Amino acid sequence: MASILPASNKPMRSDQNTYVGKCFVHVKNPYLDSMDEDILYHLDLGTKTHNLPAMFGDVKFVCVGGSPNRMKAFALFMHKELRLQDRGEDVKDICAGTDRYCMYKIGPVLSISHGMGIPSISIMLHELIKLLHHAQCCDVTIIRMGTSGGIGVAPGSVVITDTAVDSFFKPRFEQVILDNIVTRSTELDKELAEELFNCSREIPNFPTLIGHTMCTYDFYEGQGRLDGALCSFSREKKVDYLKRAYIAGVRNIEMESTVFAAMCRLCGLKGKPFMNA
Amino acid sequence: MASILPASNKPMRSDQNTYVGKCFVHVKNPYLDSMDEDILYHLDLGTKTHNLPAMFGDVKFVCVGGSPNRMKAFALFMHKELRLQDRGEDVKDICAGTDRYCMYKIGPVLSISHGMGIPSISIMLHELIKLLHHAQCCDVTIIRMGTSGGIGVAPGSVVITDTAVDSFFKPRFEQVILDNIVTRSTELDKELAEELFNCSREIPNFPTLIGHTMCTYDFYEGQGRLDGALCSFSREKKVDYLKRAYIAGVRNIEMESTVFAAMCRLCGLKGKPFMNA
Repeated sequence: MASILPASNKPMRSDQNTYVGKCFVHVKNPYLDSMDEDILYHLDLGTKTHNLPAMFGDVKFVCVGGSPNRMKAFALFMHKELRLQDRGEDVKDICAGTDRYCMYKIGPVLSISHGMGIPSISIMLHELIKLLHHAQCCDVTIIRMGTSGGIGVAPGSVVITDTAVDSFFKPRFEQVILDNIVTRSTELDKELAEELFNCSREIPNFPTLIGHTMCTYDFYEGQGRLDGALCSFSREKKVDYLKRAYIAGVRNIEMESTVFAAMCRLCGLKGKPFMNA
Repeated sequence: MASILPASNKPMRSDQNTYVGKCFVHVKNPYLDSMDEDILYHLDLGTKTHNLPAMFGDVKFVCVGGSPNRMKAFALFMHKELRLQDRGEDVKDICAGTDRYCMYKIGPVLSISHGMGIPSISIMLHELIKLLHHAQCCDVTIIRMGTSGGIGVAPGSVVITDTAVDSFFKPRFEQVILDNIVTRSTELDKELAEELFNCSREIPNFPTLIGHTMCTYDFYEGQGRLDGALCSFSREKKVDYLKRAYIAGVRNIEMESTVFAAMCRLCGLKGKPFMNA
């Protein structure tokens, strides 16, 4: 299917923002520049109410995960690791005015929750990308740290995703735009995968591998679980499906990676899901 | 496409649970009965750790909505309306052990949050339906009270959904089961719509109408918004799409109604989305 964003004769602002050695976070929306105010509704932030460059201009790493408690725990961990308590910096929820997501800033690191499933992370990513764009952030790396179900890997293993695939094992994300379906690529940064993998090797007893991650729209029927309220397939069909997924290179299953990969690729964020299986 | 649940020669337990005048909440999963324990993981409840019939057996109404704060506010409102403070009953989060969803019980009413989007509400519904089934609840009505975007209706109107439709204006929900796509009906209880509509007429200044609700997987590109991080359509295309939606009977757009309708229909819950547009 055709790409959502065909090559245009007129360069967008996002393209003008890419200089040698610096990669600014892109938006791909010609309407944004002419807007008087941009309200990031689900983050409870806005361009008129907040000085986004002052608040977020130094962000270099964004870590996202489903659970708000987990992302707070990660923020506290980073706060300790970066020894920010010595500088009197507090860890407080920047999005406390809304209960949709939570967000913590720890030096150059943002820690944000995204809820469960593609639609929920997609709303957050739209507003996060606009936030990083308005704040003029550059060279930002984004990592999703999620829980997932492993396939043919030892329990507790960490899977670093090289490619996110859909329920049919295809490296694609089908985005519905109005009533058109547009297919986007879900390949992820290979260098970052290697970097993360090398880091993991420095830590003892940290079983880590690189593989494909399958992203489903459903936790029960979509992932072959036999304990949902609805289940219409046999145990054999489930095992057959998971075996076929393994042969296709899938090492874990979760519910956000395809849209994460697709949006990061389009907007100049070096992205990587990184999950406990 | 074929229905997920073909007629079987052997009646399921759910069918045996339907008696004249009483409709028990069904599960449609032949594996559940043989399980030693059922852990409702995302609700932090289980059949061995909790006495579900004692805790939930009297539930007659379930009200669900995206935001945890809103569902807590609704619980406090119901607590006051039902005058439960006189009986010393507290309003506390039954799912406090997890941050995925929150749940309050106020007499025969459950108030539960479901996050944003089809996958998020679907996980909650699987576990809620199993909860109501284990608790042997009967004649349960479920109402989604959500926020939504209105189409051609006065701001602040309440839309009572008669049928949930997808982005293509079709009354269907496409459920991916392993790597098969199964189409489910999304029609809702017409009587309940009339009942709710009649209630609304007793309240002054409460503009209410019955119409179709469109459910999308995406808040920005899927709903024709011009202010996302990505936007590849023109203002004219957006207006044309919304006009076509209006002609098809759509009066509001949100992100959960199709799977809500499909699952309620299959499991014997009288269901209705009911939204502020």
